[in-house]
Amino acid sequence: MKTVTNAAGRAVITELNGERSIPFKGVGKHKPGGGKYGPPIPSCSDYPPDGNKVVKNLREALEKAGLRDGMTISTHHHFRNGDMLANQVFDLAHEMGVKNLRWFPSASFPCHEHLIRYLEDGTIQRIEGSMNGPLGRFVSEGGMAGTGVLRSHGGRYQAVQDGEVHIDIAVIGAPAADEFGNANGLSGDSACGLLGFALADSQYADQVIVVTDHPVRFPCIPWQIQGNYVDYVVHVEKLGDPSLIISGTTRITRSPDRLLLAELTARFCQSAGIIRDGFSFQSGAGGTSLAVGEYFKKIMKEQGIRARFARGGSNKYLVSMLEEGLVDYILDGQTFDLDGVRSMAENPGHVWTSPFTSYNYHGKGNFANLVDVVILGATEVDLEFNANVVTHSDGYLLHGIGGWQNCLFSRTVILPVPLFRDRVPVIKEEVTTLCGPGELIDVIVTERGIAINPRRTDLIERTKHSGLPIKTIRELKAEADRICGIPDPPELEERVVAAIKWVDGTVIDVVRQVHR
Amino acid sequence: MKTVTNAAGRAVITELNGERSIPFKGVGKHKPGGGKYGPPIPSCSDYPPDGNKVVKNLREALEKAGLRDGMTISTHHHFRNGDMLANQVFDLAHEMGVKNLRWFPSASFPCHEHLIRYLEDGTIQRIEGSMNGPLGRFVSEGGMAGTGVLRSHGGRYQAVQDGEVHIDIAVIGAPAADEFGNANGLSGDSACGLLGFALADSQYADQVIVVTDHPVRFPCIPWQIQGNYVDYVVHVEKLGDPSLIISGTTRITRSPDRLLLAELTARFCQSAGIIRDGFSFQSGAGGTSLAVGEYFKKIMKEQGIRARFARGGSNKYLVSMLEEGLVDYILDGQTFDLDGVRSMAENPGHVWTSPFTSYNYHGKGNFANLVDVVILGATEVDLEFNANVVTHSDGYLLHGIGGWQNCLFSRTVILPVPLFRDRVPVIKEEVTTLCGPGELIDVIVTERGIAINPRRTDLIERTKHSGLPIKTIRELKAEADRICGIPDPPELEERVVAAIKWVDGTVIDVVRQVHR
Repeated sequence: MKTVTNAAGRAVITELNGERSIPFKGVGKHKPGGGKYGPPIPSCSDYPPDGNKVVKNLREALEKAGLRDGMTISTHHHFRNGDMLANQVFDLAHEMGVKNLRWFPSASFPCHEHLIRYLEDGTIQRIEGSMNGPLGRFVSEGGMAGTGVLRSHGGRYQAVQDGEVHIDIAVIGAPAADEFGNANGLSGDSACGLLGFALADSQYADQVIVVTDHPVRFPCIPWQIQGNYVDYVVHVEKLGDPSLIISGTTRITRSPDRLLLAELTARFCQSAGIIRDGFSFQSGAGGTSLAVGEYFKKIMKEQGIRARFARGGSNKYLVSMLEEGLVDYILDGQTFDLDGVRSMAENPGHVWTSPFTSYNYHGKGNFANLVDVVILGATEVDLEFNANVVTHSDGYLLHGIGGWQNCLFSRTVILPVPLFRDRVPVIKEEVTTLCGPGELIDVIVTERGIAINPRRTDLIERTKHSGLPIKTIRELKAEADRICGIPDPPELEERVVAAIKWVDGTVIDVVRQVHR
Repeated sequence: MKTVTNAAGRAVITELNGERSIPFKGVGKHKPGGGKYGPPIPSCSDYPPDGNKVVKNLREALEKAGLRDGMTISTHHHFRNGDMLANQVFDLAHEMGVKNLRWFPSASFPCHEHLIRYLEDGTIQRIEGSMNGPLGRFVSEGGMAGTGVLRSHGGRYQAVQDGEVHIDIAVIGAPAADEFGNANGLSGDSACGLLGFALADSQYADQVIVVTDHPVRFPCIPWQIQGNYVDYVVHVEKLGDPSLIISGTTRITRSPDRLLLAELTARFCQSAGIIRDGFSFQSGAGGTSLAVGEYFKKIMKEQGIRARFARGGSNKYLVSMLEEGLVDYILDGQTFDLDGVRSMAENPGHVWTSPFTSYNYHGKGNFANLVDVVILGATEVDLEFNANVVTHSDGYLLHGIGGWQNCLFSRTVILPVPLFRDRVPVIKEEVTTLCGPGELIDVIVTERGIAINPRRTDLIERTKHSGLPIKTIRELKAEADRICGIPDPPELEERVVAAIKWVDGTVIDVVRQVHR
């Protein structure tokens, strides 16, 4: 397998699943050229005059959509680990004897472990999308015939828009949908808030199937997915397990170490002058991130500060900030709990977005650029502030990229990470897999100190008298190494099992098969 | 000029402004083939990292957008006769010495008479869009160098989407916009409700300029136009004359003849069983249409009937029906008065739509199909129920098509028209210009009787004992001819001054120069 060294110094392949792939050229260096993908022009004369696109069942829809060998089938992950639809799609494909499919989910979850059998029997040739948990393990061990491709949420939109990935059939699970195919995520048993991850699929796929367990009469308002892009509508009993789609309770971490990380992060933002009137922030839904949000809230309340907007993943904590008037708007990409869904349905200040709006690098700007501070995670960071979010230090591919790469374009990027996990240091000489270039990562917060990227002289200057434990990243690494020792690098095979795309569609790194 | 006879029996040209044009083939007969237009792929790296796209003034924006000879410039008509922007754009183009432009407005109004000078001096080569009033007169008399092209609102979206019209620079007047280019029509002095007519322009133009007289801070919510499609933002003092953008008062006709037309129309709908629980309707903003709406309201109240949706043009009458719970939703394409704007801003049941959603024939269906009954106007109707909306019987092109052709796909199409206007009969042996094929037009309501298209045996059956004055269209014509005599046909030159497109992009008829 031919490799070249890309601009980040990683040896990457130049051919990916039989097509030429472009090695990463540096941040902002790759100019796309050409035109966006133009999907086939449909005609109303080929659609039911009464607008009723409901067909008998999912199998009939797949048959009418012309499912056949070698096609690309897309699904979305708004149902997270409660999704029951993707498995059904491939059960049917298997039943129909179709082979060699490309599955193009916006993400996969442990509930999709069921699909390993279809990777083994050739129904599915490869997955392009994040492979959380069991599927990642299977791929890491070399089980998948094709090469996996991991893209950020924005990169997925970019790839579809640019025609890099041509979706034959999009299957869109919709918590509410009318007979014309207008759909949203706001009501019904499978309510998940919004359907932004399926937007590109609806706009660009040749054939679009909307599947709902909660049919409503035309017009389904709001139409987060527009029926004008939809070919068939299917009614099913149940799209997913509501308790796994939305967690009824999102909980702030109780771990003293993680609470410390959160507090240090918030204090850093305060000292650096980031938390100021009209600012904006994005913080995830993990326990530490939630705690950061709560510290922000406390500071804002104390100082009478109001944020212009917060980017979601939303949850009850963020919703409370909106409802208490601490933020003007939540610009939300996914809702993590029932308060998020309720708020999005009720509150005009709780706005649904999409990867096009928020993250697409091949747009005329996107919202991620406009966020003052974003709090993200990482599995590993290196001395150049390069970071990894997809593999563990043992080489296993166990996480997706999500919006992580896209968020790196925010004005200040902070990674609160423990100095070590299970006695494995998080700061490495070199990350196992490069997902984000260090030039975009500004601050590493650990329980034993905060390292600021030397490029950010402004942040260094502003926090030098803050009393915060500011250290160099080398000091932090040395401290972890003293405690844990330096672990051996993972034993990896030559074979590339997955490629990591940068936000512009170039290959920033590859994942190699784990030696067993 | 080579002509062929199209499927509607009209002699049309096969070449239009130097490009091949397809003659109308019959309703639903033209299959488009090929892919949608793919505009150039942009990259965030070419846009300001802080998201601020504001430039000094409109001239600078046009220069940065690369305005040059032969380009296509688009504008929208949400400001109606109060628009001040389109004239400024061409004043600047003239100042810059640019020639031979194509102006591609979603409609033009009498306020654009100013542009005749630029049609005369070669700044503008032609207008593709409706030419209401003075511009239409100028074109009819042969003043324009190129051939005008008239499209319906849906046809305009179709043409842009399909790449039939490539927009170089879209100039979008926005009542409210942020520095990133997100925009809506809901607030500010120039509030016009929504910006749906500019949607295609934003999505498909190479360069998009948003011009606002009411800058708001990011994020401008809702983003009816998405900043992700926008290149430059310009701040101006004043986009238009608010009193002409929105009429403070929309008035129901007081003419006894028109009230009779409206009453007959409503009674017909009632007798035919169209006004029933859960039905849907669209009725325009003209005096007669408003009166039809009021009769509908009366019937609905009396009978406890609730409509599922009404399609706007919205106005205070329709808004009152929404607010009184007589309709579940207004699906609105443009707001005609301040109550419409207020309601759209406040009421989640008052939904903004676009020509993509409502009218695009090259979509996977559209909303126009789903409307139970639509009330439209016409300048002429013939014995086959073919109708004209663009020219008068003297041959002058004085009106645009608007959504008229698109609405013909509704389940029942009713044209309430006076039997004659200024002693010129409305029902003709043959219409001066064919805009809508008779097979899609179901009922002609005149003050002296109602004619039902013989194809609609169901309507004939259901209304035969209604006591309504049902007649044949021949009877109605004979009656008008007895009163007015049959006027001479207009004297027309050979030269084609404009082409009328059907909803699928084919040429259904042409308009010839008026002999003077």
